[in-house]
Amino acid sequence: MFETNLYFKCENFQKVGAFKSRGAVNAVFSLDEEVVKNGVGTHSSGNHAQALARAAKLRKIPAYIVMPENAPQVKVDAVNNYDGIITFCKPTLQAREKTLAEVIEKTGAIEVHPYDNYKVIEGQATCGKELLESVADPDLILCPVGGGGLLSGTALSANYFSDGTDVIACEPAGADDAYRSFKSGKLIPSINPQTIADGLLTSVGQRNFPIILKYVSDIVTVSEEAIIKAMSFIFERMKIVVEPSAAVPFAAILENKVNVNGKHVGIILSGGNIDLKKLPF
Amino acid sequence: MFETNLYFKCENFQKVGAFKSRGAVNAVFSLDEEVVKNGVGTHSSGNHAQALARAAKLRKIPAYIVMPENAPQVKVDAVNNYDGIITFCKPTLQAREKTLAEVIEKTGAIEVHPYDNYKVIEGQATCGKELLESVADPDLILCPVGGGGLLSGTALSANYFSDGTDVIACEPAGADDAYRSFKSGKLIPSINPQTIADGLLTSVGQRNFPIILKYVSDIVTVSEEAIIKAMSFIFERMKIVVEPSAAVPFAAILENKVNVNGKHVGIILSGGNIDLKKLPF
Repeated sequence: MFETNLYFKCENFQKVGAFKSRGAVNAVFSLDEEVVKNGVGTHSSGNHAQALARAAKLRKIPAYIVMPENAPQVKVDAVNNYDGIITFCKPTLQAREKTLAEVIEKTGAIEVHPYDNYKVIEGQATCGKELLESVADPDLILCPVGGGGLLSGTALSANYFSDGTDVIACEPAGADDAYRSFKSGKLIPSINPQTIADGLLTSVGQRNFPIILKYVSDIVTVSEEAIIKAMSFIFERMKIVVEPSAAVPFAAILENKVNVNGKHVGIILSGGNIDLKKLPF
Repeated sequence: MFETNLYFKCENFQKVGAFKSRGAVNAVFSLDEEVVKNGVGTHSSGNHAQALARAAKLRKIPAYIVMPENAPQVKVDAVNNYDGIITFCKPTLQAREKTLAEVIEKTGAIEVHPYDNYKVIEGQATCGKELLESVADPDLILCPVGGGGLLSGTALSANYFSDGTDVIACEPAGADDAYRSFKSGKLIPSINPQTIADGLLTSVGQRNFPIILKYVSDIVTVSEEAIIKAMSFIFERMKIVVEPSAAVPFAAILENKVNVNGKHVGIILSGGNIDLKKLPF
């Protein structure tokens, strides 16, 4: 099908089913005992919530997780499973931020942002580092972009640990704030993004953007149809479960947005947490 | 969840997505040049058809595959993909056997039965052998049973290559011919079996049954609900794609049909070929 070699880094097999474990563990274990003794906090309805709860449990400190009251039960259960202490709020960004501020005020916990945090970026960088260790000098690494935690970490790893590997970010056309920011050179937030790739709805972070501008070679966008087609292909042919966000880089290949002909290409499959009742096929 | 260690042998990652590759390759490559020069033939609408077409292509001989005219397009495409020569027939066992006999008469091909064939059994035995090589002396191996090719091969491997590993077969209650045959000591064919585990609808073969009687420790049956629950669990927690038949041994654990407490248990996940449009969740 392609005259190329594709290497998949399967973060769906990572703890909590996504790369988010890396950043959360690095952030939680990098904090001084004095800073972290009252616990950590975040607002998240996604993989970061589980990852932070798990990391805190490993360090034997409390994790305070603010979740929207309409969060899927499966995500709530997963956080409970790691003994995360959940506070529910209205499902708006404003309510989430306000509730988290109150929880932090009350408990003395320290916030660990899902991506706009250097220790989180460092942790996510280990994914690209491992890929570079197992595939000698790929020409390209393809990586999805949402908030930019994984992408900025991957770009840093390629810069420091590879011999000229390019990093290309892949983004849903319906949530193309990273693409527009990259092309214009200034951070443009996401407004009403629409995509099946629910992990990529967030806007690129302040700390992530300068790293992306400096170390990422290009950003391409893909259609929803290509994301679903890529996801089907990965289920059917590779026999593994990925979430829609994870299928975005392979979608870019299927849609000829990236030239992979004759190249060695690393592809980061970012995670595998999906509601089986909501599969798009 | 369980006080036990479970080791999964992932035949969904095998060529053609199922253990059937093993038997087909062994059978096709064991035949003398003189015997095999006109090709091989079978009637199958399942994984064996693809596996035989692939094995024949590797040996550069033709594969004649008789398929029912209502076979799913995805299976037809897969056989075509390996250059299998397809003859369609009415979807009855009688029509399939008659059509295959005609094709063999005309072409001089030799039939390779999907399970009632010693070379196929030998090939399937390599799956259990590999499991025993990677897990030191498991107490138990759990294996699904349909026609009995995989089961008889696994039981032979456990007998010859393990230090007392028991093999327990797991079968859908709605297709329990192996269970009834095993308990009565005489081969009872399947009559109108009903199960979502479409790979296990066939009756146990003549050559398979004596091996099963002699070397298998027990056969247990599971409900349809447990099969679907096991399949969901494997998708959600292990992040891999399995077909319903492959989930049957794990269903036996979920349904407490096998005592695995404190034991090291090998579980054969037999394959991962499913129609994504027909997932039971």
